[in-house]
Amino acid sequence: MKKKIKKINAAILVIGNEILSGRTQDKNVAFISNWLNSECGITVNEVRIIPDDEKIIVKNVLTLSKKFNYVFTTGGIGPTHDDITAKSISKAFNVKYEYQKEAYKILEKYYGKKKFNDGRKKMARMPRGAKLIYNPSSAAPGFITKNVLSLPGVPSILNSMIENCKKYLVKGLKIHSKTINLFTVESNISKQLSSIQKKYKKFIDIGSYPFFRLGKIGVAIVCRSTSLNKLKNANKDLMKLVKIKKIEILKL
Amino acid sequence: MKKKIKKINAAILVIGNEILSGRTQDKNVAFISNWLNSECGITVNEVRIIPDDEKIIVKNVLTLSKKFNYVFTTGGIGPTHDDITAKSISKAFNVKYEYQKEAYKILEKYYGKKKFNDGRKKMARMPRGAKLIYNPSSAAPGFITKNVLSLPGVPSILNSMIENCKKYLVKGLKIHSKTINLFTVESNISKQLSSIQKKYKKFIDIGSYPFFRLGKIGVAIVCRSTSLNKLKNANKDLMKLVKIKKIEILKL
Repeated sequence: MKKKIKKINAAILVIGNEILSGRTQDKNVAFISNWLNSECGITVNEVRIIPDDEKIIVKNVLTLSKKFNYVFTTGGIGPTHDDITAKSISKAFNVKYEYQKEAYKILEKYYGKKKFNDGRKKMARMPRGAKLIYNPSSAAPGFITKNVLSLPGVPSILNSMIENCKKYLVKGLKIHSKTINLFTVESNISKQLSSIQKKYKKFIDIGSYPFFRLGKIGVAIVCRSTSLNKLKNANKDLMKLVKIKKIEILKL
Repeated sequence: MKKKIKKINAAILVIGNEILSGRTQDKNVAFISNWLNSECGITVNEVRIIPDDEKIIVKNVLTLSKKFNYVFTTGGIGPTHDDITAKSISKAFNVKYEYQKEAYKILEKYYGKKKFNDGRKKMARMPRGAKLIYNPSSAAPGFITKNVLSLPGVPSILNSMIENCKKYLVKGLKIHSKTINLFTVESNISKQLSSIQKKYKKFIDIGSYPFFRLGKIGVAIVCRSTSLNKLKNANKDLMKLVKIKKIEILKL
């Protein structure tokens, strides 16, 4: 039986003066586009890079969210004055910009009540109705508002979160994935990971994305496959490796 | 005496499926933007990445050329069937798409009459009235049509041509920038940064960008302004903050 493959498209809206000025080389566009392509059967049809300017963000969010199935924004969701993505999206969709309860709890727990200052609280403010995109690296969640998914600008953090976008996306072909977050450095497991990748060559794609959390360095190991069985087997191999190397697992 | 600040802006239109799909990492945006900033005092205010599609190119060229002082296009000026930038710009401005005599001569001389085939001849076809941007690398010239400057997609070739754009550009005021790299987290200084940004609202643009280095978390504070004096004053305020908070500075 032939499966029907839906054509689904997306745009990426890069928000940040540092990218526009050339100070920082964007790496998120290629990463998101590749991921959407290979993992979700979603094609990126347009990218825009714009400054940290509310009016401009509002206008572009509205234009792109009408034109494409999904919009991914990157950047502007941190604690400082130039982080205005959440506020601007609220304005674009004419909804309240307010504390998202779950995000507030996550951040309060992460920082501890005493160190949960105004800047950090700001990262819990989102458009009303937003749902969270969990962040294994630095806790502060991304969020989805209607068809707009908002991610941070720092590539390593964005990379560690991208799998958590999946549940919000309608895909072409179903691809399963399994993530294990390990407190270790990539070079400690790269050889064994490579062997596991070779063993499941045709069936599983293994990615490793470094993160930094609770003062420790970690790696998110992401396995993707259309076969749930193969995925389970690869996961067993990974857990063996974790046991041998005595690596601590981060449970989210 | 107050200097009149000429603000001159530009957009970059990246034309190419390979960039959109994530297969190729764009490097031209950062390069062009840096060059415009430092060499010409021109600020890039928007970037768009679009597919090799005539209708879409036409629409975006028109939109951006109305909105900004200059538009730089990259990609799509080679010899193959999917190189449709020149033809699309002709359509956008409703002018003939025809051989540019000087470009024809340059290419004929470069390849030799015998090897000057149809694909290569195609690179001499441009919108009527186009002026050339000389190419010291591979001969095939870029061109300027009204306020739209068209460059190739290959970074090394583009880089070698960029100086030849200068004669077509009206320059703005030099934009100075000053970066301080601090070993602290954003949320530790976000409140004070916000105050400093407010104080210099019209004159300085302050950005804060997290980094990870030598096992420690840090923030790069970047101040940009056309006024060196204001920049020095803001820097003094920042150094006061650094002293009060006892923040370590990363010296590069």
